[in-house]
Amino acid sequence: MTEPLRIALAGLGTVGAGVIRLLDANAELIARRAGRAIVVSAVSARDRHKDRGVDLARFAWEDDTRALGERGDVDVVVELIGGSDGPALALARGAFAAGKGLVTANKAMLAHHGLELARAAEAARVPLRFEAAVAGGVPVVKGLREGAAANRIAQVYGVLNGTCNFILSRMESEARDFDEVLAEAQAMGFAEADPSFDIDGVDAGHKLAILASLAFGTEPAFDDVALEGIRHVLRADIAEAAALGYRVRLLGMAEASSARLFQRVHPCLVPVSHPLAHVTGAANAVVAEGDFVGRLLFQGAGAGAGPTASAVVADLIDIARGNVGPPLSMPSDLLTPAVRAEPGDRRGRAYLRFTVADRVGVLAEIAAAMRDAGVSIESLIQRGVQADGSVLVAIVTHEGPERCVTAALERLRGSQSVAGRPMLMHILD
Amino acid sequence: MTEPLRIALAGLGTVGAGVIRLLDANAELIARRAGRAIVVSAVSARDRHKDRGVDLARFAWEDDTRALGERGDVDVVVELIGGSDGPALALARGAFAAGKGLVTANKAMLAHHGLELARAAEAARVPLRFEAAVAGGVPVVKGLREGAAANRIAQVYGVLNGTCNFILSRMESEARDFDEVLAEAQAMGFAEADPSFDIDGVDAGHKLAILASLAFGTEPAFDDVALEGIRHVLRADIAEAAALGYRVRLLGMAEASSARLFQRVHPCLVPVSHPLAHVTGAANAVVAEGDFVGRLLFQGAGAGAGPTASAVVADLIDIARGNVGPPLSMPSDLLTPAVRAEPGDRRGRAYLRFTVADRVGVLAEIAAAMRDAGVSIESLIQRGVQADGSVLVAIVTHEGPERCVTAALERLRGSQSVAGRPMLMHILD
Repeated sequence: MTEPLRIALAGLGTVGAGVIRLLDANAELIARRAGRAIVVSAVSARDRHKDRGVDLARFAWEDDTRALGERGDVDVVVELIGGSDGPALALARGAFAAGKGLVTANKAMLAHHGLELARAAEAARVPLRFEAAVAGGVPVVKGLREGAAANRIAQVYGVLNGTCNFILSRMESEARDFDEVLAEAQAMGFAEADPSFDIDGVDAGHKLAILASLAFGTEPAFDDVALEGIRHVLRADIAEAAALGYRVRLLGMAEASSARLFQRVHPCLVPVSHPLAHVTGAANAVVAEGDFVGRLLFQGAGAGAGPTASAVVADLIDIARGNVGPPLSMPSDLLTPAVRAEPGDRRGRAYLRFTVADRVGVLAEIAAAMRDAGVSIESLIQRGVQADGSVLVAIVTHEGPERCVTAALERLRGSQSVAGRPMLMHILD
Repeated sequence: MTEPLRIALAGLGTVGAGVIRLLDANAELIARRAGRAIVVSAVSARDRHKDRGVDLARFAWEDDTRALGERGDVDVVVELIGGSDGPALALARGAFAAGKGLVTANKAMLAHHGLELARAAEAARVPLRFEAAVAGGVPVVKGLREGAAANRIAQVYGVLNGTCNFILSRMESEARDFDEVLAEAQAMGFAEADPSFDIDGVDAGHKLAILASLAFGTEPAFDDVALEGIRHVLRADIAEAAALGYRVRLLGMAEASSARLFQRVHPCLVPVSHPLAHVTGAANAVVAEGDFVGRLLFQGAGAGAGPTASAVVADLIDIARGNVGPPLSMPSDLLTPAVRAEPGDRRGRAYLRFTVADRVGVLAEIAAAMRDAGVSIESLIQRGVQADGSVLVAIVTHEGPERCVTAALERLRGSQSVAGRPMLMHILD
């Protein structure tokens, strides 16, 4: 065995404490697998005196997080502070400037500053690793960067946010409304007090931007991710989808074609025969479609102290073993800038749901708007008067350009027949 | 970019030709990801003049496979000959002796000689990689050795043989008999003319022995794998399982507890709620249960030229990037010898099916044998006379030690009531 790998931990929340617990519990096993011990030299967090259930007295303490990167007894800084900018970014920049490696779970920082950080790590010839940033404990960053590295990837997509999947699964299994299940998820700790980061798709978008960069060799381009969350999914949508043989999942999806990159987070209808239809609860799963390997699926726990710590320590073991390679899928000067694809060009089938007034001519108006926009209807269900007096119309379209569906909705905007916001979900085929 | 990685290919069957096609098709992408080009220097196969659909004239040809390892223009030998011993093993030994790395898809050779080969590679300080040996294109070797490396693994199990899964899936979806579907699989190229290696569980056993070594840090121990295949699974078993909420899958399963290792390939009942129940056709899938990460699932194509080539080239890209680490999950002198667990100690639920004579007292005799062996019956179905005049009795037991079920079957051996061989399948809970 050679010298231990010495690390500093910045951030001692659930995940930080989990990393310490894991390094304690499996120390001997990790040393055998890594070829050397992994030891914590120093830690830093906001409150030194908070009880985190782990013994911190053995580690040096730094009040100023940035000081971790400057210590002589640290090889790699583990950043678990979170936030795209602020102290996390300052720490990362400082670590590279001081010649230290960085392991981070920070998807927001990578989605926004991934290219800058990859360049800085390469310039300093130190590792930057972030398995925990996407899909928690699931080794999908490794799966794309290394496991599928021989393939041209056509598509990468998946269930990337455990909170949304928990809510959608519950809405389905218990036939309950979004607001009610969200409140329950908050009470259970599966959703934040301010849940917008999760339920509006921002978190999934961060992860998708990282996956797309790895899959397609493009610079991370979070600003090009179209975001839509699950706030407007009704219990009735889930029931209609089920009747048609689908389940509703919030999918992050990225596709590359003709040197253009399409990235979207959107609630989708997933056929029950597709593996993602069976991803329930807070799990995450990612599918990659490669030209030689075909369809690969990676699935597991997308969050939580244990799984996230597992991914952080896997990165540390890789570093301890001397595994190198660029932070992203190739050296950052070989990445190509992402050119945003025009979503309207994309072809697919769609699910549309309207809440309508219960009066003559409504259906004719909707059908005419579809016809005039060039949308071909595969099936249409009108459900009689609901508890609140409204009537639902659910439509599944034939395959066609997405721009036509958008145009049909545009034609119906301001119509007296349609109450509230129509729901559009794409169908995964 | 640095110097190219120069390889030699031994074996030019479907997979060998697939590797050449992949290296041709994605050469530029692979070079960007690997940091250097991967080029073929020399090839060898039995028949030089066979048309394989790829241009071989650009490569040096060696009639004697072993000469590949001795060439000065080769860094890594790719062994795609197959077979646990013979030319493959001679080539591997020769490559290490000459200081060359080895990438192989040969599960049989690794299951039987993995420890010797890992030691030889370590002694020569050259890589030995074998992603393609388990689950084809699915990066599960990497997933265990690296992705889950921080975890103590309790169980690793999965659908490891695409031929068996294809047959079982068809028997289920089309309600057909084993022999008929096997003949169809042979005609379609999903099963060999001599299918015993697949359908008797040997191939799955080889893969399981490799997975177990990676998961538990034990020496590969194929001789300790209990093997049972799918020859005796009746269409009626699949129907009874379905009625009870299960699907029949041939699972390879390894568990570690109290420093003992349990390894078995066996047709099992998998609850429809479990992801492995949704692995259909020729796909493979592996589940690993880690103490911190929880349940991880890896799924994809388990065979075929494209997926297997994808895994071979992924290993080559790792080597080109300079990724190192021991061939198995830790240096071979740290592996522990596998101590075989006593299967009778294992607790679980079981499915038993008897073909019985249609006469008085049969059920009483079976029930008494169960009672006397200490097996508690959860449910029992007797199905009236079948087309061939026999009667089926299917039993699901409560959880208990497996030795009791074995003892009950022992009590019924030679009974006049039971015709033919009873079927025992364990239930995945």
